[in-house]
Amino acid sequence: MKTTLEELQQLLANAAFLKTFGMMVHSCAPGECTVVVPYAAELERPGGVLSGITLMGAADVAMWLAIMTERGTAEQWLTTDMKTAFLRGARRTDVHCTARVLKLGKRNAYGTAECRAADGELLTHHVLSYAFVSA
Amino acid sequence: MKTTLEELQQLLANAAFLKTFGMMVHSCAPGECTVVVPYAAELERPGGVLSGITLMGAADVAMWLAIMTERGTAEQWLTTDMKTAFLRGARRTDVHCTARVLKLGKRNAYGTAECRAADGELLTHHVLSYAFVSA
Amino acid sequence: MKTTLEELQQLLANAAFLKTFGMMVHSCAPGECTVVVPYAAELERPGGVLSGITLMGAADVAMWLAIMTERGTAEQWLTTDMKTAFLRGARRTDVHCTARVLKLGKRNAYGTAECRAADGELLTHHVLSYAFVSA
Amino acid sequence: MKTTLEELQQLLANAAFLKTFGMMVHSCAPGECTVVVPYAAELERPGGVLSGITLMGAADVAMWLAIMTERGTAEQWLTTDMKTAFLRGARRTDVHCTARVLKLGKRNAYGTAECRAADGELLTHHVLSYAFVSA
Repeated sequence: MKTTLEELQQLLANAAFLKTFGMMVHSCAPGECTVVVPYAAELERPGGVLSGITLMGAADVAMWLAIMTERGTAEQWLTTDMKTAFLRGARRTDVHCTARVLKLGKRNAYGTAECRAADGELLTHHVLSYAFVSA
Repeated sequence: MKTTLEELQQLLANAAFLKTFGMMVHSCAPGECTVVVPYAAELERPGGVLSGITLMGAADVAMWLAIMTERGTAEQWLTTDMKTAFLRGARRTDVHCTARVLKLGKRNAYGTAECRAADGELLTHHVLSYAFVSA
Repeated sequence: MKTTLEELQQLLANAAFLKTFGMMVHSCAPGECTVVVPYAAELERPGGVLSGITLMGAADVAMWLAIMTERGTAEQWLTTDMKTAFLRGARRTDVHCTARVLKLGKRNAYGTAECRAADGELLTHHVLSYAFVSA
Repeated sequence: MKTTLEELQQLLANAAFLKTFGMMVHSCAPGECTVVVPYAAELERPGGVLSGITLMGAADVAMWLAIMTERGTAEQWLTTDMKTAFLRGARRTDVHCTARVLKLGKRNAYGTAECRAADGELLTHHVLSYAFVSA
C-alpha cells in the first residue's frame, strides 16, 4: 500500500469539515478502506434514524481513502458522481462503511461502498466516481 | 401550499443534525423549495472547496421541504435514492439549492435539485427519490 | 447550431444498432434534441408495457445528438454514466424524448433527458454523462 | 431456487422485445443470474464498440431473472431505477453479465450487475431497483 492506516487516520483527524461525524479509520487494504461512525444522537434526523447525510459522508470519505491506499496522499482526487440507495434505517448503532475501488485509471476511479449496522445489516449501497485533479 | 415558509424555516431550525450546515429556507412554492447555505470556512474540504457532503445535504433538505409544500409537515417521507453530479467546485460563495418535485405519488416522490454559486454557476445536479413512511 | 436536423436524422438512419427502435429526430436547438419512438408492439415487454431498454436507448441517443448540436458530428463522444428513473409505464403510445445539455466542457458533458407519452405524461427521467474521446 | 435455468431460458426465448440482443442464460443461483450476449456486428455503434443499450439491456434482464430465482416467474417485477457506469468499451467479444440481488423485500428489490468481456475485463457496472407490481 502507498499509504498506512496511521496516515489515513491522521488525514481524517485533520479534516475540520468532517468533525461533526466523528469518523475513524477501521482498516484498509490495497484499493479498500473501512471507516467507522460511532453512534451519536446528534447525527439522527427526526424520528431517531441516522441522517442520510452522515451515511453519504461516510461512503464518500471511505472511497477517498481507498483511492489513497493505491495512489498516496499527495494527489488530489475529487468526487465527480455519487449515487446512494437507502435500504434500511440505522437506529442507535455504530456504522461501518467499506469502500472498494473497482476501476482505477490515470484520471478516473470508480467503486462501490456499503454501510452496515453493528449487526451486519446492509443500510446503504453507494457507487462513486472520482477524478484526478492535476495541480 | 400545505406549508408556509415560516413552518419550513422552523423545522430546519429545530433539526439538530443539520446545525453544522447553517442552512436557511430562501423561498418556496408548490412542489419547490430553495435553501441557502451561507459561506463558512469550516465546510470546506482540503484545497478550499466546499465539501460535497454540504452540497448533498442541501439538496436532500431542499427536496424534503419541497415535498412538504404539497403534503404538509406531519407525514414522514424518507430519501430512498439520491444521485449527485459534481460539476464545478464552490469557492468562498454562498450556495443556493433549489429542489423541484417532478412526480408525487401516494407512496413515492421523485425530483431534481441543483446547487448554484452566488454568481449563478451550476455546481451540482441531483436526482432524488423519496418514499412515504406510514406510521 | 453546428449541426442541422437533416444531418442528425441522417446519422440516426445510418446507425444499424438502432434499427430496432425506429427512432426519428423530431426537433433540435442548441444543446437540445427531441427524438420520437413510434409505437411498435415488438418493443413491448410482457404485460404490454414499452420496454425500459427502448426508453433508455431513446434518452441516450437524444443526448448524443444534443451534444452534436453544439460540437458537430465529427467528434466522438461516449456515454460514461447514465441513470434512469422509471416513473410510469408507457402503453400503446408514441414516445417523445427530449435531452438537454446542462454543462458542456472540453472533455465532459452532463445533461438530463425525459421521455413523455403522446398525452404529455412523464414516463422516465434520465441524467447522463458523456466524455469526449480524442482520436 | 424457485425457478430453474430452463424456465429462465424459456422466458428469454419468448421475449420478442429482446430478440435483437440474442441473449442466453448462462447460469443462475439463488439471487444471482448470468446472461451471455454473443458477439454480433449489428450491436456495435459507430466506431466498432458494443452499444451501451445492449449492455444496459443485459444488466436489466440479468437482474430480472435473478429476482425470479427467489420469487418465481409468476410475479411481475418492474425496473424502477437503473444506473450504469461505462468503464471500458467492448470490442469483438462475447459479454457475460452477472446480476446479484443485495436486498429483496416484499415490494422492493435492489442489486448490482456487471458486464465483463470474454477476457474478464470489467466493461460496465450497474445498480438497479425493482418494484413488485401487484396484479
